[in-house]
Amino acid sequence: MYGLMGKMIAKPGQRDALLALMLEASTDMPGCRSYVVGRDIENADAIWVTEVWASKAHHAASLQIPEVRAVIQRAMPLIAGFGERFEMEPVGGVGLRDSD
Amino acid sequence: MYGLMGKMIAKPGQRDALLALMLEASTDMPGCRSYVVGRDIENADAIWVTEVWASKAHHAASLQIPEVRAVIQRAMPLIAGFGERFEMEPVGGVGLRDSD
Repeated sequence: MYGLMGKMIAKPGQRDALLALMLEASTDMPGCRSYVVGRDIENADAIWVTEVWASKAHHAASLQIPEVRAVIQRAMPLIAGFGERFEMEPVGGVGLRDSD
Repeated sequence: MYGLMGKMIAKPGQRDALLALMLEASTDMPGCRSYVVGRDIENADAIWVTEVWASKAHHAASLQIPEVRAVIQRAMPLIAGFGERFEMEPVGGVGLRDSD
């Protein structure tokens, strides 16, 4: 499995719009075993996305899905920048969807 | 919902033993909607735990469950320290278990 945790910084006032887009992007992605988006506690403009994929290749492939690319295009104008980003190799736990 | 992402540093050679204990701790916790443990990509001694709870109170309560406390006691000798820790307010996504 392949896991990512990343922070995105929305432009002022755009956090919830960005969250909504990130949620929209998260449906029906092959190999996606977990994908959670949320509001950072400390920074009113920041969101977190935590992702678990069947493999790193599945994550890379997801970025080529036309619907995902379309959402990314719509999200770009809402994004001021990026914060911390960490990768991990998930080994298990609770809430991992079956792999496609 | 309440979300946590945290890095723990195992003592040298103890990472997989610590991972196994963290997985053991993750079963049957009320209000736990997601709990993923994995190996950090960059640090051979580090693990990540990402958690989503129905509420912050559910997370706090989990630390008082006797079985969880017992696992924490067993894990302590394997832990060299802690790394980054972030809190978030999850809003949705994929792989969130139903709340208890």
